[in-house]
Parts: sequence; structure tokens; C-alpha cells
Amino acid sequence: MTKTNVTYERHLLGLKQLEREEIASILDRAAYWESQTSKVTPRLEGKFVANMFFENSTRTRFSFEVAEKRLGAQVLNFSAAASSVEKGESIYDTVRTLESMGIDAGVIRMKPIGLLAELAEKIKVPLINAGDGNNEHPTQALLDLYTMKKTFGEIKGLTVSIIGDILHSRVARSNLWGLQKLGANVQFCAPDNMQAPELAEHAPYVSVEEALQADVVMMLRVQLERHDKGFIRSAEEYREHYGLTVERAARMKPHAVIMHPAPVNRGVEIDDELVEHEKSKIFAQMGNGVPIRMAVIERALS
Amino acid sequence: MTKTNVTYERHLLGLKQLEREEIASILDRAAYWESQTSKVTPRLEGKFVANMFFENSTRTRFSFEVAEKRLGAQVLNFSAAASSVEKGESIYDTVRTLESMGIDAGVIRMKPIGLLAELAEKIKVPLINAGDGNNEHPTQALLDLYTMKKTFGEIKGLTVSIIGDILHSRVARSNLWGLQKLGANVQFCAPDNMQAPELAEHAPYVSVEEALQADVVMMLRVQLERHDKGFIRSAEEYREHYGLTVERAARMKPHAVIMHPAPVNRGVEIDDELVEHEKSKIFAQMGNGVPIRMAVIERALS
Amino acid sequence: MTKTNVTYERHLLGLKQLEREEIASILDRAAYWESQTSKVTPRLEGKFVANMFFENSTRTRFSFEVAEKRLGAQVLNFSAAASSVEKGESIYDTVRTLESMGIDAGVIRMKPIGLLAELAEKIKVPLINAGDGNNEHPTQALLDLYTMKKTFGEIKGLTVSIIGDILHSRVARSNLWGLQKLGANVQFCAPDNMQAPELAEHAPYVSVEEALQADVVMMLRVQLERHDKGFIRSAEEYREHYGLTVERAARMKPHAVIMHPAPVNRGVEIDDELVEHEKSKIFAQMGNGVPIRMAVIERALS
Repeated sequence: MTKTNVTYERHLLGLKQLEREEIASILDRAAYWESQTSKVTPRLEGKFVANMFFENSTRTRFSFEVAEKRLGAQVLNFSAAASSVEKGESIYDTVRTLESMGIDAGVIRMKPIGLLAELAEKIKVPLINAGDGNNEHPTQALLDLYTMKKTFGEIKGLTVSIIGDILHSRVARSNLWGLQKLGANVQFCAPDNMQAPELAEHAPYVSVEEALQADVVMMLRVQLERHDKGFIRSAEEYREHYGLTVERAARMKPHAVIMHPAPVNRGVEIDDELVEHEKSKIFAQMGNGVPIRMAVIERALS
Repeated sequence: MTKTNVTYERHLLGLKQLEREEIASILDRAAYWESQTSKVTPRLEGKFVANMFFENSTRTRFSFEVAEKRLGAQVLNFSAAASSVEKGESIYDTVRTLESMGIDAGVIRMKPIGLLAELAEKIKVPLINAGDGNNEHPTQALLDLYTMKKTFGEIKGLTVSIIGDILHSRVARSNLWGLQKLGANVQFCAPDNMQAPELAEHAPYVSVEEALQADVVMMLRVQLERHDKGFIRSAEEYREHYGLTVERAARMKPHAVIMHPAPVNRGVEIDDELVEHEKSKIFAQMGNGVPIRMAVIERALS
Repeated sequence: MTKTNVTYERHLLGLKQLEREEIASILDRAAYWESQTSKVTPRLEGKFVANMFFENSTRTRFSFEVAEKRLGAQVLNFSAAASSVEKGESIYDTVRTLESMGIDAGVIRMKPIGLLAELAEKIKVPLINAGDGNNEHPTQALLDLYTMKKTFGEIKGLTVSIIGDILHSRVARSNLWGLQKLGANVQFCAPDNMQAPELAEHAPYVSVEEALQADVVMMLRVQLERHDKGFIRSAEEYREHYGLTVERAARMKPHAVIMHPAPVNRGVEIDDELVEHEKSKIFAQMGNGVPIRMAVIERALS
């Protein structure tokens, strides 16, 4: 098993394994696609891309679909109710089936961790990770990097605070790997029961007040029902201790920006008034997802 | 906030606010599209239209999708299980997300009333109402008007009876506003608990016998489970007192036609034998939905 | 009602009524499509094909969708939750609605048996059966025939064993009719409670050992929950008595192949190790589904 295998490299499984130069090249290509005036190009005419979502996600699927269609590809959408296809074996059979039918690339989201690397060894068409468990969500992190690069000119030297449920967050992990490769300083902020012990050696956990002093304050969606009750027992308590409130946002640096992978819980991890605040890049992030995914899909198919 | 804002006018929120001339121009343009022999044109090539159905509807979504594809647009379909996205805030975030991704127009169906006007103020891309609560369903009424115009030559002077659950019907409301602007006489017919008090000043309630004497007898789908039991306690009783039975249809004027927005409850508000009766325009209405929606989408995007 | 009616002949309701020459011509045309290097042709440009699945099936719908898109057609997908549209009347209204909207052909899957023939009499656009109850699944059998022809050169004289739940299997029925028309010998193998009495006059039931001596061993998906408990009471017992185990597969003839319509129950009707065994044609079958369906759709629309 060699990593110089060409097919393997056209997969996008995560940012942990991706070279710094590869990341930079995807960001550059996204800028190219964003600068194009015509919406649809024949770049991938005659290519079939399957969006295989074994876990539902309207936003991410839509973003990929827009990217694929702007590239002129044929799009196939597959959504499995979580109940019907969840086991690795069924996922493998489904992906193999689509490969047999002649798809040229697959975008895949699923709950199991580790399965994607196995699939990538067995499946000949390139696979793009659209989120796997709490492991990675590389296109989200790439669009976050792209948003920061557009905002600050370069990523090197930025301090980025990621606040919230680090434990369950693939967004936090992909951002950690990507940001560090590009020279940013990453720090986490989370209540005890939302910290990820295995990430402690990679980035420090800081207090909310310290986190607010970063160049980028990235809030994560919190799902309290996922956690044993620690000292945080309600949405109100979460907001009080970790939420980005209007008061806290006022203490951010003048040039600093707010980010969030969405969907947001307004009034829980972020106050309603901040979602479209002048400091917020939240909807800009969503817009940036399209050129990033165009770059990623193009890379997979070229 | 000015209503002469160009973007605002490209929305289609309802017929209540639409000028008579605008309605006439949409009907004319539908006739143009219906007369085209080639099925797909490049009219909207490179444009992205998102069908956002926060309330399920196979027929209406399909009709819009056919219209969009015949115009050469790229189509994105979104259906939310009623449970997951129902609140206005989530709907706003979803529509804003799609806007951020670069869609050129949105077709939207949802339960909340009043939200669409708010969205239209905040969202820059044109929105087309595909049904909002019991408020309006403008493309349904436009296709009904178009069907009547094709049948009778002109709408002015026609008497149109709308029979059934007026209280919950957006179809009744949009038809009322549209028909009156074009000079038709509208009358309602409904049991007490299905009457809409706020519409009483706009059109009279008549008996079934009187309603049958109209040029157009438009039956509405009835959903008995929505109502407190009045004197109508079952589908059988509904049919007996308000249904368009074969016997009642025989008392209609020779030139008069039967309409229904579908889906029909055969044997409840309309007898099975009447659905494809020579007097019935029901499937013709569905066919007319496509050129009407082509005209509406083209208007939104030009 | 005449069977020489042109429209009628463009339907594909089942293989029982299809002439031998028609089947041969579809297989030839599939070979043509498989040999094409360019993935998408403008063959059916401007045509609308609706996939109407009143019973869910990801694989079959995907296969049709790839075929339709490779032919350049516009595709509309409709999936009904089994609960909402199941009755024949609703299915008829839905299909008539889509016909009114101007679709050029419909692919349809549904539970009721006998309804498709009724629809084909009433609906003007050609309909393709994608599976109706336990009656027929003609495109599956055609792709099976095509797979056998590619493997053995010709079908005439082959012995094909179909093992499993014959009673509930539309795949078994369509294969029976198709294989016999092309001169193959068909034999069934099933426990008593999975045998179909009405097919006994058409093909013999043989023992597992005898079934293993065929040129083609076709396993069917078993769903034990559908059956009254006979002497088979569990998946383990099914595997023990009727499953294609590694041991049993070793007793197959050297040139013989394993087939399965998928999805497979690994470890029940077929051992995990056999799914991608060198004798297995399972994923090849799925690949062959695309050119077969291209041939069938092209036939419907030409």
C-alpha cells in the first residue's frame, strides 16, 4: 500500500494526511473558480458524480450539488435514512454498486469512523469525504481556511479559537490539521465533558476570555443531548458560560471575525444578533463552500 | 422600503398584490410557452433554481421542476420533513444559505403565514410562492385562470363557484383575488365550519344548488380531520351535502366545466366518474401548470 | 384492445409477453451502448423521463437514472413513502398527473400486481416496469440474460438454477420467462414454504446438490420475516440448508458462475467470501444494468 498511488491521492479523506502544498493549491483553484463570471462550465461534461449521504445534510449536499453542476457534471443524489443503511458492509455494497454503474467520483458522508480509508483502498473511483463521524470534514475546513485567507490575506500567524463541542466535532479536527499546516495557532475552548483528550497534545484549551482575543472566533454547534450532564445542564447555562453573546463579541479585537460551520442554534452557542453581524463570516463561509468544492471535485477527476 | 424596488417585483408572493396587467402578461407568456414545439430551450441556461419545499408536495414540485428544466435551468430540490424545519427562523437560515450558495431564484412552500413577505424583504434573489399556509398559492390560481381563459376565451363576466373548505384553502384565496381582478364573479359554497369569516365581504356564500349554476364549478379537496365536527360528521355526509355527485353534475349548465386543484378525494368531494368526465378540466389544469410556471420563473429571472 | 397498438408495444411490462426477437434486439442494443466510449449522448435530448418509485429502491432507481442521463434525457425522480401512496387509484392519479405535465416515458415500481397492465391501457406515454409486486422485474432479468450472454457467448442450452424465495420473487419469474424464450433450462430450488405453486408446471424444483451442477447458480435475497415458519426457522438454518456457502460453491462446475440480483444478505443466502469471488458476476450484473436500461428506455422513446 503506497501513498504515491495516483488514485489514492485523488481521494480527499481528510486534511490530516494532506500536504501543505495540496491545501494551498486547492485554495488557489477555489479562487480561480470564484472569479469565473459564467456560472456553468463544461469542465466535467459527461462525468457522473454521486452524492452518497448515509447521514442527512441538506446544506452540505446542496453545496456539493451546486459545485458539481457548475462544473458541468451529471449529479446523482443518494440519501439513506440512518436506519436502513448504517453498517459498514451495506455502505461498502452501496458504494461498490455505484462504482459498478460507472460513476466517476463519489462524495460520501457517514457515521462510521475508519471505514472511509478502507473504502478508498477497495474502490477505484475517487472518494471525497463530506463528513465521517467525529473524524474529519475536510471540505468544511478548506472553506474555513479559504474564508480566513480572503479576510486576512494569509493564514500564517493567525490565532484561531475553536469554541464548543470539540469532542464530537469533525469540523474542529479538520480545522486543527489544516490550520496548523498553514501556520496558524489553534486553541480550543470547551467545558470538561466536551473536550477531546486525544487532541490535548495538539492544541491548548483556554478560557473563554482568552479565546475571545483571537483573530478568528469559531463557534461550534452544540447538541446538549449528546452529553452526560456535567456542570452545564441547559441551553441557558451553555450560553451563559460558553456562548458567544453580544457582550462577549464586543470584547473581541476590532479586526477579528466570527465563524460557525452552521446550522446555528441561535441563542445557544451564538446570539441571534451576531449571526449576520458585521464581524460574522457565517453566510460568507457557505458561499465559499461552492468554489472550494469545485476545486476539490475537479482535483478528484483530473 | 419601497414596493417599486425591482427585486421585490420579481418575487411572486401572491395574487392579492399583483396588478391586473401583470396577471394578464403571465397568462400571455404561458400561451407562448405552450405553443413552443421544442421541449427544452436555453432561455435560462446557467441559472440555478432551488425548489424549497418545507411542506411536501409531489405534484407541485414536479410541475415546477418540469418548467425549470424546459427553460434550461439547473434545478436543486430540497424537501424538509415537516418536523425538522418548521420554524420561521430555520426556514430563513435555509433560504439564506441557498442564496449564499448562488441560487438565482427560489420556489418555496411552507406552513407559516406572513413569513414569505419577511423573507422577500431580506433575501435578494426572487422568491416564488408555491403555497404558504392557507394564505396564497398563486401559481395554482394562475393556472386555473389560464385554464378558464383557454376554455371560455375570456375570464371577464364568468361566474365561478368555489365549493368546499374555504377556511383552510390558499387555492380559494388566490383564485378569489385573481378572478376578481380579471372581472369574474366569485361565489363560495361551504358548510358553516369551513367558511372563512374574513372573506365574507369579498364574495357571497351560496347554496350548492346556486353554486351549480356557475360557468366554473371548482371543487376543493376536503380534509375532514381538520375540522371540529359540525353537522358534517363523515365523508359520506360531506358527499351528500357538498360533494359534486354525478347527479349534481348533470344539473350544471351545458357549457360549464368542473375544476379541482388536485389531489382529489374520489367519492368525497367529487365522484369518481367525474374526474375524467368531458366537463372536467382537472388533468388539463395540471398540464397548464407547466407553461404557467415557465412564465412565472422566466419573469422572476429576467 | 389490440396488442399491435404501437404505444402498447413500447411499454415494457414484463418478459412473459415479450417476443424472443424483441429480447434479442434489446440485448444487442445494450451491447452497442456498452461499447460507446462517450458517456453521455444527445440521443434523447429534450425528452423527459420520470422515475416513479412507489416502493423504494436506491439501486434500481440509480441504475435507471444513470441510463437516462447517459442518453441525454431530463430526469424527474419521484419516491413515495409506502404509506402515503399505495392504492391503485392514487398511483393512477399520480401517473396521469405526470403524463399531463408532459413526460415522455415513465419508469414505475410498485407493490400492486395487475395494476401496471391497466395503467398501460390508460396512459399514453410508454411505461417501463421497474418491479411490480412478485410479478415481474423485466430489466433485472434482461441484465441477467445480458450477463450470461457476455459470459457464455449464448444462452441457448445453458442450465440456470434459481435458488431461494421463488414465491415472492419477481426476479425469478422474469428470468424464467426470458431464459426459456432464449432456450435455457431453468430449475428452481427452494424450501416448501418458498415455492410458487403456479410455476411448478414451468420449471422443476430440484435439490440444492442438483442445483449446484448448473452453468449459472442464481441466488435470491431471502427475507425470512415474510414466511410462516416452516422447517427453516432462522438465518443460520437457511444458510445451512439453502445458502451458497464456500463449501457448496467449491462443488460448482469449473466454468459455472454465481449471480444474485442484490442487495445480498452476506452470510445468509450467500457467504461473504463469495460476493466478489472470481466465479461471482454480482457487481458485473449491476454494471450491465446501465446499458440494458439505456436500450429499454431508447426503445420506449423511439
